[in-house]
Amino acid sequence: MKFSNAFIHTLKESPADAEIPSHKLMVRGGYIKKLAPGIFTYGPLALRAIRKFEKIVREEHDKRGIVELLMPMVHPQELWEETNRWAEMGDGLLKFKNRNGHGFCLGATHEEVITDFVRRDVKSYRDLPVVLYQIQTKFRDEIRPRFGLMRGREFIMKDAYSFDLTSEAAQKSYQMMYECYVAIFRRLGVEFRVVQADTGNIGGSLSHEFQILAENGEDQLLVSTVGDFAANIEVCPAADAQEVPANSAELKAMEKFSTPGLKTIADLSKATGVPEGQLVKTMFFATAEGGDDLKPIAVLLRGSDEVNPVKIKNLLGLANPPLLLTDKEVHQVAGAWPGSCGPVGLKIPVYLDQGVQNLRNYIVGANVDDFHLRNVNHGRDFQVTKVADLRLAREGDRAPDGKGTLKSYRGIEVGHIFYLGSKYSRAMNANYLGVEGKLEPIEMGCYGIGISRTVQAIIEQNHDKDGIIWPTSIAPFHVHICQLDPEDREVLTLADNIYEELAANGVDVLMDDRQERPGIKFKDADLLGMPLRLTIGARGLKEGHIEVVNRRTKEIVKVAPDQVLSHVLAWLKENGR
Amino acid sequence: MKFSNAFIHTLKESPADAEIPSHKLMVRGGYIKKLAPGIFTYGPLALRAIRKFEKIVREEHDKRGIVELLMPMVHPQELWEETNRWAEMGDGLLKFKNRNGHGFCLGATHEEVITDFVRRDVKSYRDLPVVLYQIQTKFRDEIRPRFGLMRGREFIMKDAYSFDLTSEAAQKSYQMMYECYVAIFRRLGVEFRVVQADTGNIGGSLSHEFQILAENGEDQLLVSTVGDFAANIEVCPAADAQEVPANSAELKAMEKFSTPGLKTIADLSKATGVPEGQLVKTMFFATAEGGDDLKPIAVLLRGSDEVNPVKIKNLLGLANPPLLLTDKEVHQVAGAWPGSCGPVGLKIPVYLDQGVQNLRNYIVGANVDDFHLRNVNHGRDFQVTKVADLRLAREGDRAPDGKGTLKSYRGIEVGHIFYLGSKYSRAMNANYLGVEGKLEPIEMGCYGIGISRTVQAIIEQNHDKDGIIWPTSIAPFHVHICQLDPEDREVLTLADNIYEELAANGVDVLMDDRQERPGIKFKDADLLGMPLRLTIGARGLKEGHIEVVNRRTKEIVKVAPDQVLSHVLAWLKENGR
Repeated sequence: MKFSNAFIHTLKESPADAEIPSHKLMVRGGYIKKLAPGIFTYGPLALRAIRKFEKIVREEHDKRGIVELLMPMVHPQELWEETNRWAEMGDGLLKFKNRNGHGFCLGATHEEVITDFVRRDVKSYRDLPVVLYQIQTKFRDEIRPRFGLMRGREFIMKDAYSFDLTSEAAQKSYQMMYECYVAIFRRLGVEFRVVQADTGNIGGSLSHEFQILAENGEDQLLVSTVGDFAANIEVCPAADAQEVPANSAELKAMEKFSTPGLKTIADLSKATGVPEGQLVKTMFFATAEGGDDLKPIAVLLRGSDEVNPVKIKNLLGLANPPLLLTDKEVHQVAGAWPGSCGPVGLKIPVYLDQGVQNLRNYIVGANVDDFHLRNVNHGRDFQVTKVADLRLAREGDRAPDGKGTLKSYRGIEVGHIFYLGSKYSRAMNANYLGVEGKLEPIEMGCYGIGISRTVQAIIEQNHDKDGIIWPTSIAPFHVHICQLDPEDREVLTLADNIYEELAANGVDVLMDDRQERPGIKFKDADLLGMPLRLTIGARGLKEGHIEVVNRRTKEIVKVAPDQVLSHVLAWLKENGR
Repeated sequence: MKFSNAFIHTLKESPADAEIPSHKLMVRGGYIKKLAPGIFTYGPLALRAIRKFEKIVREEHDKRGIVELLMPMVHPQELWEETNRWAEMGDGLLKFKNRNGHGFCLGATHEEVITDFVRRDVKSYRDLPVVLYQIQTKFRDEIRPRFGLMRGREFIMKDAYSFDLTSEAAQKSYQMMYECYVAIFRRLGVEFRVVQADTGNIGGSLSHEFQILAENGEDQLLVSTVGDFAANIEVCPAADAQEVPANSAELKAMEKFSTPGLKTIADLSKATGVPEGQLVKTMFFATAEGGDDLKPIAVLLRGSDEVNPVKIKNLLGLANPPLLLTDKEVHQVAGAWPGSCGPVGLKIPVYLDQGVQNLRNYIVGANVDDFHLRNVNHGRDFQVTKVADLRLAREGDRAPDGKGTLKSYRGIEVGHIFYLGSKYSRAMNANYLGVEGKLEPIEMGCYGIGISRTVQAIIEQNHDKDGIIWPTSIAPFHVHICQLDPEDREVLTLADNIYEELAANGVDVLMDDRQERPGIKFKDADLLGMPLRLTIGARGLKEGHIEVVNRRTKEIVKVAPDQVLSHVLAWLKENGR
């Protein structure tokens, strides 16, 4: 493709609302243009990267016998009511009525539609298994869209759904999709991790995320230094770096003491000389989902630990992680303001993080403002509803499988697989007649890749101060020719010939044939980020060479014009085309 | 692909709401499944046909330097207000508010979005020309969706837009797109016609439709038997088969006469003995667009002619074809009920179809119930606002270019190209700085192909009583193998080998490996409609052959197993792959 008809327009300035490098670079490179918050037009270059990624995704699905179809973007209300997600999804699901007054929503995910599609044809066990997928545009009405394609409203997804006879078969499908996703992200040639993950409001009981590593990633991952263990911090079991031994100290008498102005664990530790890890903090959460009653609970952790609300959610079987009580609500429940609260005398369930279990004679708030209690002991001074792992794991913790310790990474979630069991099939009566003539619910799994999100995540991982650095796998073009000296007929002819020769050999070439200064062309080439840049100019030609510049390393190789094709082909072969 | 994991389920019965063969066949073949009225899931087979058509469309666009991008499906209200189409498009444009209360619509077409995309980057004449296209899912909230994909709500479109400096350049782009479309529909291998067309509410002044011929087509086309002329009947100029010579008969005295119960032209002709072509009928239309006043007009035509409301629309510069007055409204305007109305004494504009111009001493309604006037003459008895071509052309008329006569066809509109001029660019301030430093509006064109619609239109043209007959160009699979005798190991092995061999040579093969009777497999093969069927069974093998059945001709050729590949490849080459 030539610049002269490609409608590529780069910008010098980043847009004011772009916070992370990949968003800035995509806008500056003309890759995307915002139509409304969270809604973007994909320019010609972005679309080429997207299509290349889609091709990899399709190939890996097709070769595993997974069949592509295409579902609608507009869904009828009735279908979403069958699973109660019409209500549960809240305002993220964009709902509207059409001219005839029928309720519809824009598809944010397609469990309901695919389950309906399948249940209408599945009669008996002989009609299963089947795994279906689509690549399609979805819409989620994010309150505050940000980070460009990373948290947009309109986005391109690949979503697959498996339908099996038994739980065992469904878990085999899950394993197949796991391997399919590993193959896809390996082919991309980017750094990624597969981590255990929470199932969120999709439901189900087994789930992995595929995370592209990047400094600005929204997710924190904990990965074992030795074994295979890797998890999103949301679900990572916590194991102290050094196990805290059972404490057999004598229980001392509880004492109330004055702690004016000491509101934080750090203050309290400083004032009392007790290390934070031996202080106990009390946090309050509302576990009600709807209704007026907050159903408050208290959670006790060591002062040095952070609470993990996803663990509370899973412990209590809630739909969403519980929210902290406000200061005022805490005051109503505990009789004191936060900073002076503790478990003694509370009339609500008290959950103990396992890290507190072996502590003795510890300090907690007294539920009287500016007072604490020392020598407090669970069991004696207050009753515990349950002991559980409720803290956030952290770098340096032991890996839960006992192999090595945990190292922390930041990642961008680009793929997510779920074993759903019969959650949707039961709700929607998607059954099959078993061998013995009994109706059984279909066993399901669902599997998603954020196509547009992945493309930006790759940039977030692969860029420098000058611009994007595309991996060969999805680079919009492999080669970017900067044709200098446009008034020099010899240069023009050679550039055209090389352009044609490369294209004829299956290399994707972008040629900058604009009437612009070399500096501008080089800057744009760096910004747009194709893996190889060819500089074809009069000066080089006089010396009998063309410059081949590696975008990532900036290494320059001088190549004779008649060697350019073989040089480029060899480089691409080595670099993962 | 094998039936066993393709999730293909055929139906014996057509759905009750399917009126035309292509809709019935697509549903019965499992090609599409209705999610809501006018909203369908494309099953695996339909999607393959769609993707093959998209590939042809892309190749023909790309080779002409037309660049692909992808625009959003959700559009902000403000943009559509710039052109006033937020109001003008009415309820066909599906409008809603998101959670933040902002107005949006689902994209039914993308003139506003692409014009915005382009205007933000175009500064001077050096940034043009450019032609951009996308293939994308659109939504139009049809009141009564019907005919499956033919008049659906959610549909896949290819839409292209050209941006030029001058009207001449824009018309060259138009011509290029015309040729691009001809190339695309030729490659499909279907019967189509390109016809002059009305510009509807897209606007502009030059327009052609690409019509796939089919008995059940919604459009009527008139095509010259000799020359190149072809037009949608909506815009076809009318030229009588035999020219009516100027009539110099003496003007007789007007007379009122009683015509009790004579309400139709046929009745009147019978009672008076005057041929219908020499009677004059008076029709009443409302030309107001909004507001309380109807702005009625009268239109006079020969009794044997039909009025063409699109011609009235274009004559008067209306946005939409005018509606006929109701009987009651006619009575208010003319003082009599329809059947007894005429032009004499009317106080509203009277338009004369050119066919009436040479008539003398004709009969019209008297504007008194059950009375007519004879010996009426325009100019003397009533004043004419304008004489114009206002009737529908018909088969047998002379072609407007004088070459041959017109023949009538039915067609399905699958492509439509428009020269827009500066309608959108002026409304949206999409300007460029000209060579002389003056701001000029960009000259535009827009060009659409209904992707999903075309696929169904092809079936409407290509089917028989047993099912679909795909042209090779977009057949989901080239070859459909019916593997019989599944308990016969030799048959199984050979079928598998042939399946692999064909696939390895780039032939798309569907293999029916189900445990079903031959009759069921043959019926499904006919219904699904792949161009070639291979029957591999024990009986044939004993005789050393496989049957190759041509779906269209039903011709059967017996081929030795080791000749199947070369036979199939040769056939496909001859038949337009």
